[in-house]
Amino acid sequence: MQNERYARGLAKLQEIDGQAGEKVVASLADIAPDFARYLIEFPFGDIYSRPGLDLRAREIAVVAALTALGNAAPQLKVHIQGALNVGVSRQEVVETIMQMAVYAGFPAALNGLFAAQEVFAEAG
Amino acid sequence: MQNERYARGLAKLQEIDGQAGEKVVASLADIAPDFARYLIEFPFGDIYSRPGLDLRAREIAVVAALTALGNAAPQLKVHIQGALNVGVSRQEVVETIMQMAVYAGFPAALNGLFAAQEVFAEAG
Amino acid sequence: MQNERYARGLAKLQEIDGQAGEKVVASLADIAPDFARYLIEFPFGDIYSRPGLDLRAREIAVVAALTALGNAAPQLKVHIQGALNVGVSRQEVVETIMQMAVYAGFPAALNGLFAAQEVFAEAG
Amino acid sequence: MQNERYARGLAKLQEIDGQAGEKVVASLADIAPDFARYLIEFPFGDIYSRPGLDLRAREIAVVAALTALGNAAPQLKVHIQGALNVGVSRQEVVETIMQMAVYAGFPAALNGLFAAQEVFAEAG
Amino acid sequence: MQNERYARGLAKLQEIDGQAGEKVVASLADIAPDFARYLIEFPFGDIYSRPGLDLRAREIAVVAALTALGNAAPQLKVHIQGALNVGVSRQEVVETIMQMAVYAGFPAALNGLFAAQEVFAEAG
Amino acid sequence: MQNERYARGLAKLQEIDGQAGEKVVASLADIAPDFARYLIEFPFGDIYSRPGLDLRAREIAVVAALTALGNAAPQLKVHIQGALNVGVSRQEVVETIMQMAVYAGFPAALNGLFAAQEVFAEAG
Repeated sequence: MQNERYARGLAKLQEIDGQAGEKVVASLADIAPDFARYLIEFPFGDIYSRPGLDLRAREIAVVAALTALGNAAPQLKVHIQGALNVGVSRQEVVETIMQMAVYAGFPAALNGLFAAQEVFAEAG
Repeated sequence: MQNERYARGLAKLQEIDGQAGEKVVASLADIAPDFARYLIEFPFGDIYSRPGLDLRAREIAVVAALTALGNAAPQLKVHIQGALNVGVSRQEVVETIMQMAVYAGFPAALNGLFAAQEVFAEAG
Repeated sequence: MQNERYARGLAKLQEIDGQAGEKVVASLADIAPDFARYLIEFPFGDIYSRPGLDLRAREIAVVAALTALGNAAPQLKVHIQGALNVGVSRQEVVETIMQMAVYAGFPAALNGLFAAQEVFAEAG
Repeated sequence: MQNERYARGLAKLQEIDGQAGEKVVASLADIAPDFARYLIEFPFGDIYSRPGLDLRAREIAVVAALTALGNAAPQLKVHIQGALNVGVSRQEVVETIMQMAVYAGFPAALNGLFAAQEVFAEAG
Repeated sequence: MQNERYARGLAKLQEIDGQAGEKVVASLADIAPDFARYLIEFPFGDIYSRPGLDLRAREIAVVAALTALGNAAPQLKVHIQGALNVGVSRQEVVETIMQMAVYAGFPAALNGLFAAQEVFAEAG
Repeated sequence: MQNERYARGLAKLQEIDGQAGEKVVASLADIAPDFARYLIEFPFGDIYSRPGLDLRAREIAVVAALTALGNAAPQLKVHIQGALNVGVSRQEVVETIMQMAVYAGFPAALNGLFAAQEVFAEAG
């Protein structure tokens, strides 16, 4: 069954994060290969694969949370792209981040917007 | 125009938070009445009144963010109820909070679930 | 294999947290039973069951982290008791928490010490 | 010289926090008496005793920081009272906390205002 | 009246942050021009324009808060310069940041001091 | 006696952090030399010099806390090296960081692992 979780998680990771997710996994190969496996199995194989909340809402939730926490810029950028990948519009990403000014302050929202700006520029 | 922002914000506050929002505003009357006004004008009159992201998504975003931050339990409970008020299902609230285990750890998700449990119990 | 993770995690949860861990799991039964299962499987079945770092060090690490974060008092108390359960002395718990004054400030350390005081008093 | 730091810190603690500071110190007697000593020596004997920033500004700084962090309510209340003790007006306390809505979000500012409300009510 | 808030905010932004504030606003033009407007209207037009706390104290409060939060380095640097612009001395900035070692730990204070070092070096 | 704390702290700083610690102290010389002295005296002269918790456990605690807080990357890297210096194995460092996925989320653990990767690469 572990293989099922891994296979399901890997498919979900590719659906959401595309190559960015795979790069993160690859970057762990020399230092913590088991952690790369956990990352596929628990967040993607268990959580993102659950029914009850669609992927668009899940990506809006994570963009909101990482913007508010303000201490995980690389992961925020991966999930801004992930949000776009699953059908969240650029406008919806921007609105989600702007709203965080209310809950985590203007600096958190500003830094989230600058992260979105980089992601949008890379995507062209 | 300030009156417009206030009126628009008050209507939006009532739509989202119902009596809980009004209680917060009332509780500020003796110490910081201007802050009660700002709370209506900026978050509700400016941000929540924007097009581009529907209220369901906005409430999912704030439930996610406050669960992840983990230091604003009263406001998290108000917004769990707010999410229900604008059409987010209990299941979607629970899924949003569970997902935060991935981004802010299991204690944050647990405390979010216990907050939801209280809100659901009060709502009957 | 999922059953193996669950069984291994449940045994580890009982070894570390005793009845406190089981109470947390039971408290999730009505709202998020799958999350209770994940809590057993990932943190306890996967992480705490790993070789390479003994349980004493793992509990010192979590007491340090939860003291520093300062926003998960119930879980900090469970893990202070967990630390004692796996052989960390009261003095070592106190030293770990005191050290957090350096990394997260005196209020975080104070609130950690008061949590330890409660746990020690309950334990007698 | 250690005695000098302790004596200077104790006098400064009493000047700022009055009995509240001494209660905190007393509450540590059974679990971490050395930490009580460090608390007097480093924050109060070293930092608060420095020239270059007056006590009013120091208390405004700490009220701002603890409001923004949002995870140390007891210490925030002690320092709201401390601010009043060294000549910061209630209005200045309220303005400092309100301003934190900009830097840490409205929930942090709200919880800070409710803390101030309690302190002001106790003071009469 | 919205125009009044904007005009008042823009003047206050220029008074406090000078060109740095205007650069932030300009940098939002392509991604979130409304957010640039909110930034001028709410923090600067509403909050910083209030009586009851002078600008020196307001800048000390924000330097303290952003140092303590530790996750908004660009904004901390803007406000260290802002503090200098409204008459806070370099020594007062340094004292404010040093004091945060007590409330948010030595790493937060160290990173705040390094930010100040950069700002002071740029200012010459 | 102040000289005793300083001498004891400097020896402890060198034992744990080697040249990295001394570089931090040197970098404060122009902006806050007293803070460099406090850094040696309180964290290293007072806290790390205490009996009751060995240096290996102390470094595991700080690596855990700084990984979880996620906003002090330079200090995390210094203490990953510090952990290695006092006899914590690379595997133990990695396990400590991985465990933080449970308490502070996967992004915090990932960023901690990437910090470890840099430190290990520099050490060869």
